[in-house]
Amino acid sequence: NYSSQVHKATLIPGDGIGPEISAAVQQIFESAKVPIEWEVVDVTPVKGPDGKFGIPQSAIDSVNRNKVGLKGPLMTPVGKGHRSLNLALRKEFNLYANVRPCRSLEGYPTLYENVDVITIRENTEGEYSGIEHEIVDGVVQSIKLITEEASTRVAEFAFKYAQENKRHKVTAVHKANIMRMSDGLFLRCCRDAASKFPDIKFEEKYLDTVCLTMVQDPSMYDVLVMPNLYGDILSDMCAGLVGGLGLTASGNIGLNGALFESVHGTAPDIAGKDLANPTALLLSAVMMLQYMNLNSYADAIQKACFDTIKDSKFRTGDLGGSAKCSEFTKEICRKLQ
Amino acid sequence: NYSSQVHKATLIPGDGIGPEISAAVQQIFESAKVPIEWEVVDVTPVKGPDGKFGIPQSAIDSVNRNKVGLKGPLMTPVGKGHRSLNLALRKEFNLYANVRPCRSLEGYPTLYENVDVITIRENTEGEYSGIEHEIVDGVVQSIKLITEEASTRVAEFAFKYAQENKRHKVTAVHKANIMRMSDGLFLRCCRDAASKFPDIKFEEKYLDTVCLTMVQDPSMYDVLVMPNLYGDILSDMCAGLVGGLGLTASGNIGLNGALFESVHGTAPDIAGKDLANPTALLLSAVMMLQYMNLNSYADAIQKACFDTIKDSKFRTGDLGGSAKCSEFTKEICRKLQ
Ligand SMILES: CC(C)[C@H](C(=O)O)[C@@H](O)C(=O)O
Ligand SMILES: CC(C)[C@H](C(=O)O)[C@@H](O)C(=O)O
Repeated sequence: NYSSQVHKATLIPGDGIGPEISAAVQQIFESAKVPIEWEVVDVTPVKGPDGKFGIPQSAIDSVNRNKVGLKGPLMTPVGKGHRSLNLALRKEFNLYANVRPCRSLEGYPTLYENVDVITIRENTEGEYSGIEHEIVDGVVQSIKLITEEASTRVAEFAFKYAQENKRHKVTAVHKANIMRMSDGLFLRCCRDAASKFPDIKFEEKYLDTVCLTMVQDPSMYDVLVMPNLYGDILSDMCAGLVGGLGLTASGNIGLNGALFESVHGTAPDIAGKDLANPTALLLSAVMMLQYMNLNSYADAIQKACFDTIKDSKFRTGDLGGSAKCSEFTKEICRKLQ
Repeated sequence: NYSSQVHKATLIPGDGIGPEISAAVQQIFESAKVPIEWEVVDVTPVKGPDGKFGIPQSAIDSVNRNKVGLKGPLMTPVGKGHRSLNLALRKEFNLYANVRPCRSLEGYPTLYENVDVITIRENTEGEYSGIEHEIVDGVVQSIKLITEEASTRVAEFAFKYAQENKRHKVTAVHKANIMRMSDGLFLRCCRDAASKFPDIKFEEKYLDTVCLTMVQDPSMYDVLVMPNLYGDILSDMCAGLVGGLGLTASGNIGLNGALFESVHGTAPDIAGKDLANPTALLLSAVMMLQYMNLNSYADAIQKACFDTIKDSKFRTGDLGGSAKCSEFTKEICRKLQ
């Protein structure tokens, strides 16, 4: 129960524009009097006793202790053998479901006006297994791994999410016409989950069909659940429909905690110049508040953010405006006070 | 040299609306006096001497003899063990590159006005290898197979295509940050091909980034080359931007011939009712003429088709009009005479 006392949450500011947008979120949380105390940690890989680079133990302990974290963009260290830090975090905390809501912003018109979809992505296996071999010279195989356990877990999560958030339909996205066994297994797990949630409509669609129809009429879709790579693609496509990764939130839900993150890059070209847009990280922080059942804070902050974007004089450069990150942030704080 | 004498081409009318739209194409070709004689064949699987179902030998012989074919939509036979006939044809004729041009139609406005991209898809391996195993109960793996041979072949095809069609840029689409070995190999083959075509600009992009930016600004892209599944997705997405599969052409290029096809479904609900739109099959037939260097016929037919679509009174139901397939076809023929 997260209701009244002060809660701790881990904050990973990240690289590039990460520190600026993290500071903006902290300021906004203060203005909204959110009862959260941040524990700021650094996840830059350090050399362990075994000589290998890894996430510092203190950062891991912090997330495990607090059960919720917020994370800015991370640079992937250069050099062979370094896997993406984002992937390392997903693995470390067994973050099995990646949830990305994409909704058209009233204040920020794009080609589309009626986008309101949630992509839920299996986050631990599939095409991201990391298992690859060179069979003979010039012949490589990568293994897509689908398990009943992970598929059932994410499928049931999707239906529970739909139920709790008063959504009406879950669409399972697949290519079981091609990958009959792997996507076939994923699909069967979705059907089994569907049978436990008779109030939520269930449909199955081919990935290519979803891509085609999504750009024609996004209002056909509600909650979508799918294997790892398909989620990577569809979530980015949907983000594109509503204005890009600078405006969309993301949450990674695990068995023992959850990590919320902006999924845009570190934008080294504008880092440190007070030009970044903190919206994606802020909306991810709002998702975190919802996850913690701190809904009144979540609602207030989200409203202040959307209302600020509506007013073009507070828009940052990525949205075609000329406001500074600090001006945008200050206006949100003003609205919250 | 295809210039003056009469050429034979195989026609596979297909199922559902296939026969109607094939007849429309034949009529239009006659009006344009295209020097092509059709050899009509049926590819409905028949039981072979080994008891297995397969494409009839006479159909295979026809394509092999004529080297060019046009194919309407095919139903996938129901029942376990039947793989998609489309896939069987790709395999049978070693059709290694699937080419799908997507261009905004002047006469048919959608949300987008500036789409002009060509997706070139590796058509023989990748995620479509068909190799899958159940390791233990509830754990399945599908193998994505990437070879230097097939990757080089399609990469070089893409650059040659760009050169011959006066295009400026080839974008290799990949997830080599995740599938380092398989997509890494594909990417290396693209880089090698690029080095042989210094006049064509080359860039590399992540699949998710392409999906996001394509819906925001399709004019960023020109020719795109990619592994099998990514092509399946992106080509459908691009088709969605310009009005759907009823308006887009597709060509499968092989070592010994090529098969052009509409990629929409058989539309059983409207089959036989003179309501189908033959545009996709017609534009695929136009691609076939270009492939045969019958460019003046190709240009004339394409122009007549686009001009007819511009006039809303000749549009079929899928385009929001109420014209019959035969009315649309007749008008194209009239324009050609
Ligand atoms: C950064 C990259 C490894 C990651 C992915 O492919 O999952 C990103 O695209 C995402 O969607 O979070
Ligand atoms: C029908 C299906 C097997 C096919 C594919 O997945 O390749 C289709 O979607 C296509 O794009 O031609």
